[in-house]
Amino acid sequence: MKIQSIITGTGSYIPRVIKKNSDFLTNQFLNEDGSPLEYENEVVIEKFKAITGIEERRYADLDLASSDLAYFSAKKAIEDANIDPEELDYIILAHNFGDVKSSTNQSDMVPSLASRVKHKLGIKNSSCVAYDILFGCPGWVQGVIQAEAYIKSGMAKKCLVIGTETLSRVLDPFDRDSMIYSDGAGACVIEAVEDATANSGIISYAAQTDTFDECYYLFFGKSFNKNEDNDTRYIKMYGRKIYEYALNNVPIAMKAALDKSGVDILDVKKIFIHQANEKMDEAIVKRFYRLYKTKLPEGIMPMSIHRLGNSSVATVPSLFDLVKKGEIENQEINKGDVVIFASVGAGMNINAIVYRY
Amino acid sequence: MKIQSIITGTGSYIPRVIKKNSDFLTNQFLNEDGSPLEYENEVVIEKFKAITGIEERRYADLDLASSDLAYFSAKKAIEDANIDPEELDYIILAHNFGDVKSSTNQSDMVPSLASRVKHKLGIKNSSCVAYDILFGCPGWVQGVIQAEAYIKSGMAKKCLVIGTETLSRVLDPFDRDSMIYSDGAGACVIEAVEDATANSGIISYAAQTDTFDECYYLFFGKSFNKNEDNDTRYIKMYGRKIYEYALNNVPIAMKAALDKSGVDILDVKKIFIHQANEKMDEAIVKRFYRLYKTKLPEGIMPMSIHRLGNSSVATVPSLFDLVKKGEIENQEINKGDVVIFASVGAGMNINAIVYRY
Repeated sequence: MKIQSIITGTGSYIPRVIKKNSDFLTNQFLNEDGSPLEYENEVVIEKFKAITGIEERRYADLDLASSDLAYFSAKKAIEDANIDPEELDYIILAHNFGDVKSSTNQSDMVPSLASRVKHKLGIKNSSCVAYDILFGCPGWVQGVIQAEAYIKSGMAKKCLVIGTETLSRVLDPFDRDSMIYSDGAGACVIEAVEDATANSGIISYAAQTDTFDECYYLFFGKSFNKNEDNDTRYIKMYGRKIYEYALNNVPIAMKAALDKSGVDILDVKKIFIHQANEKMDEAIVKRFYRLYKTKLPEGIMPMSIHRLGNSSVATVPSLFDLVKKGEIENQEINKGDVVIFASVGAGMNINAIVYRY
Repeated sequence: MKIQSIITGTGSYIPRVIKKNSDFLTNQFLNEDGSPLEYENEVVIEKFKAITGIEERRYADLDLASSDLAYFSAKKAIEDANIDPEELDYIILAHNFGDVKSSTNQSDMVPSLASRVKHKLGIKNSSCVAYDILFGCPGWVQGVIQAEAYIKSGMAKKCLVIGTETLSRVLDPFDRDSMIYSDGAGACVIEAVEDATANSGIISYAAQTDTFDECYYLFFGKSFNKNEDNDTRYIKMYGRKIYEYALNNVPIAMKAALDKSGVDILDVKKIFIHQANEKMDEAIVKRFYRLYKTKLPEGIMPMSIHRLGNSSVATVPSLFDLVKKGEIENQEINKGDVVIFASVGAGMNINAIVYRY
């Protein structure tokens, strides 16, 4: 009997605090060497917006941690799937910095955030195995691939996959890149459906890790302010290198997944890509279609980055949830549509899933 | 064709710095409420040794981080398996605190430790997917279960599974429980063997997560010294609760795995159990045999805790490697032997694997 992995419910949590670009006008932005930027903040912010598309982003309330956001999104996904949470075989939670309490610098991940979510959900069933994965921004997509492995090998029937992050707690206010980062969480329930006629579900996927030259393109590093505590580290990136890496590799990974699926490029209805940077995402998708010598279809790539920024593992599941629920303007998804989930981030890692809705 | 997951190589890294019980004679041990302990350190240490069995433990050199230890153990496992590391499909790395630089308090896990190990191994193959899992002390055993899922679902042929931890970097020197913790790393290579006659490999497993009451039995908490920085947290545990939880649940999980395997209790040759506490481990295994109304066989449970302490995810793979290589006195393992890997820890999580060597 053919077993298919089907997403039966989704949920997302959009934090309440809106941080606008204008809120960074008073930041003291520095270069990596500690020298001040050449331009005024107004110019820096305008350029930032032109490249990334970000106008505002969301930060979690100060009394909430990453696992709280995860719980909120998980609860909605479970309700949307209309399942009894006690039936879950796995809770797979992707993050990269654990729970970081406001105004502290430590990552807390003992117990795992997945355990905390299971606790908050009040699940008593011991057989529901909860663990965290660390895989950079593509962590949630990778969690879905892991759920597919459990389902295909007969090890699970129902999995909850969550991506959650509070990047606002690990950013260096002296680094202009910090304007990219935001907080958020997204989740989905994936179920095994044994049905030879099942037409929806995960069709194919691709995943890769590049570390030979790329390992430290995204890393945990010192503040650009040389007067800051030398021992405290923040999320840091070499944006130019990441841009080139992503542009060279993500379209190929997406093509590898699509070619494995047997689906025609013209039948792809939506691409839910990690909301890293608008210009980069546009360039990736453009190049993906060029690999098929096909014109980029209008509206193929829903975007949430303008209002929500880059919330790492949370962007793809949140965006999918928002489109599903009609909350992104001029975007919709219909039964039978083939969609691609794709992501790139720290590791460096890339992955893509071809999925029939 | 029957596909079996076979461990084809193992490796471990035992840190060089020996920390003896007598090295704690000058510690200022406190109760949770900050009051001094009732007894002198000599008495506290003697009692500690009687319960845990620990005489000394190992700490990593100050210039090494958890991912370095992981790399050393991984390199040995790859050599032992005699494979080309470029052939690896997955690197699965279990830890709970990331890389913590000596004398700092932050966990660094961007990029993931698995990515760092892949980088150090010089692996160029993009298809070798590297990620970290957080599952408390049972993380390495769970990584092996994940490798089994990939192999059984046809997603992988060769996986490297590593457990690494530097608990010396996250312990509260005012807490007597800190004498338990040590550093170390262990690894194995697991390969898919397609052979209807294959007799070795993973036969069965069990895994569980208990969070309803148990979620915070092991946690990241404040120092017992109330004068310490209020924002810095350390590994903390409610030892009595963990002891009772483990004793009540680990034997049942081991039995669930063994019953699924169809192997007779009398055919079990070794139990490689997480080195948490000697008295607790003895009580668990005794109760496991009692479930089968069978006498505990002598020498069934190799122990490394006396000299190596509790290095979390590293204990099971290290112990297996040491016994395999004849480095634990009066212990050996022979081709065809059925063994059980079992672990319990933060989450709270428990797992067990029945494996034919």
